[in-house]
Amino acid sequence: MKTLVVELGTRSYPIYIGEHLLARGELLKHHLAGRQVMIVSNETVAPLYLPLVRAALAGLEWHSVVLPDGEQYKDWQTLNRIFDALLQGRCDRRVTLIALGGGVVGDMAGFAAACYQRGVDFIQIPTTLLAQVDSSVGGKTGINHPLGKNMIGAFHQPRCVLIDTATLVTLPDRELSAGVAEVIKYGLIGDSDFFAWLEGNVDALLRRDRAVLAEAIERSCRNKAAVVAADERERGVRALLNLGHTFGHAIETGMGYGVWLHGEAVAAGMCMAAALSARLGWLDVAAVARVESLLQRAALPIRAPAALEPPRILELMAVDKKVQEGRVRLVLLRDIGRGVVTDDYDPAALAAVLREYRA
Amino acid sequence: MKTLVVELGTRSYPIYIGEHLLARGELLKHHLAGRQVMIVSNETVAPLYLPLVRAALAGLEWHSVVLPDGEQYKDWQTLNRIFDALLQGRCDRRVTLIALGGGVVGDMAGFAAACYQRGVDFIQIPTTLLAQVDSSVGGKTGINHPLGKNMIGAFHQPRCVLIDTATLVTLPDRELSAGVAEVIKYGLIGDSDFFAWLEGNVDALLRRDRAVLAEAIERSCRNKAAVVAADERERGVRALLNLGHTFGHAIETGMGYGVWLHGEAVAAGMCMAAALSARLGWLDVAAVARVESLLQRAALPIRAPAALEPPRILELMAVDKKVQEGRVRLVLLRDIGRGVVTDDYDPAALAAVLREYRA
Repeated sequence: MKTLVVELGTRSYPIYIGEHLLARGELLKHHLAGRQVMIVSNETVAPLYLPLVRAALAGLEWHSVVLPDGEQYKDWQTLNRIFDALLQGRCDRRVTLIALGGGVVGDMAGFAAACYQRGVDFIQIPTTLLAQVDSSVGGKTGINHPLGKNMIGAFHQPRCVLIDTATLVTLPDRELSAGVAEVIKYGLIGDSDFFAWLEGNVDALLRRDRAVLAEAIERSCRNKAAVVAADERERGVRALLNLGHTFGHAIETGMGYGVWLHGEAVAAGMCMAAALSARLGWLDVAAVARVESLLQRAALPIRAPAALEPPRILELMAVDKKVQEGRVRLVLLRDIGRGVVTDDYDPAALAAVLREYRA
Repeated sequence: MKTLVVELGTRSYPIYIGEHLLARGELLKHHLAGRQVMIVSNETVAPLYLPLVRAALAGLEWHSVVLPDGEQYKDWQTLNRIFDALLQGRCDRRVTLIALGGGVVGDMAGFAAACYQRGVDFIQIPTTLLAQVDSSVGGKTGINHPLGKNMIGAFHQPRCVLIDTATLVTLPDRELSAGVAEVIKYGLIGDSDFFAWLEGNVDALLRRDRAVLAEAIERSCRNKAAVVAADERERGVRALLNLGHTFGHAIETGMGYGVWLHGEAVAAGMCMAAALSARLGWLDVAAVARVESLLQRAALPIRAPAALEPPRILELMAVDKKVQEGRVRLVLLRDIGRGVVTDDYDPAALAAVLREYRA
């Protein structure tokens, strides 16, 4: 087992990474304020792993709520099922919520923990690659609004993140690829060595080679932990983690939540960010080709869906948390491994990229 | 104009108290991060004061949302109307929400600000006595759940609180009395001089004597600001501010939100807390009589509604944010001006008080 730490002063917490950690109840119990736990999972993950976690937490007052699976359920109505379960279970301020599932479960359980009785503890047990390398670390929680993704939420850090890499055995291929998109993102925004390593290892990653998966997860979490420690509330450098996300969120919202996976939308978005960077003369075309090639080898889309007209994408991009005074700020690339946040781009160049990158 | 400060380090903020402050746009503009404002008000208050605030904010990008009036609307559905308005208005992270109304508007606008894009600024402009002396100060925000009052929310401090005492001219008598309940609370939990002063001035307060109102508001805000500065997150002393509230929330939830005003329920609850304290031998019966007499002179109820059976009240009291390990902690009185938080009471004494204090 490896342990990384997200350094946030009194809110610092460990990320445990290893195989078969779900059975290690002592890792979890160490982080509980009281005797009550509420496990939040979904219909896909609960049958696979809930009994294991339940056994690991033997002796505690144990509750659970199982949500429907999918981004389309990351809404108020489903969130309220967590509050209902907490109140029906008479959970008090010392309850710890445990998110057992992918990014949607983690975002919702974390947001419920942020709001229940004005804030209780929670723990992340991510079971998808995307959640393990990205969404479970850093305390971003929330739900979607019909008009914009992740528009309602809170910064609320977990007490620990427990990554059991053995859970990836049951992950569908499409979900595995979606997670690889976020892994590649770390290489692009700040770690060109990691990007090059991925070019050499992406096939092994997709074959679920255990050593390669473990290294990809650890390096991703190290990158994420460093950025979050430097800028918890996204006043600056943390915005780099949104490479491809402004484009990607527009795709997810425009297509209807759950039609494209988040990682798929981010993959297409990163291609568009790279292409716009090239149009602005910041990135050479060979680098754009490397980005597209790596994403394609990871079985990820490199174009936006034909169903979305470019003007509609532009309209959706204007609803983004990085908008300031009406200007959409984007994460672009000065090089592979060198992301920048900027609103200093030619709108005509953006429009041209949106036309060019429609499938 | 008087200015008090809630001392919370980098999150410190002023409370401005005076007549006709609504027209003083410069007081507000000083606290805005950006050029966008979203005024949140309700159907009762908006016709009276929204035009004034709008004029005071001339030159800014101005939005508003007018909610239905009443505790029964402090729910998800109504909260979502604020999010809809923010997204439809393309409000970005620098928007400032302005709560113009009573406690319900303040709690909801504050919670919306806590959650919109994971946190934006807000300002409190309380227009009821209850909101001016209590709920607008201290950063408690949230909504009700059908199973429990204020169960979903956040600690989110405003950038400033602007109390225009002239707005009390339009406040209905019943609402004025409800506010007086929270004023009396400060005397009971920690300020026996203030309690005695209120015994001498409650009639003038109800007559809306301007000097007496101003003094009651200022002394209440001083008390509140000191407690919040000492214990922002309610780990200890802040719980004293909940005198009468565990009983009161049970009444509000049990009767249906909005049937009893919050201050009315708190008044009856404070009588029950005093009576229980007397039964435990902590408070003499003469003090209980003083509490009931003062509340009665303020036209407040001193008994729980007959419609609620004592076992039902007990059941509802068990859903309270002060519950720990299944024990309901209560704020009781060791003397007038000396509140204590305790779970060290005889359940039989509590049951007897509930029977005795049923109207």
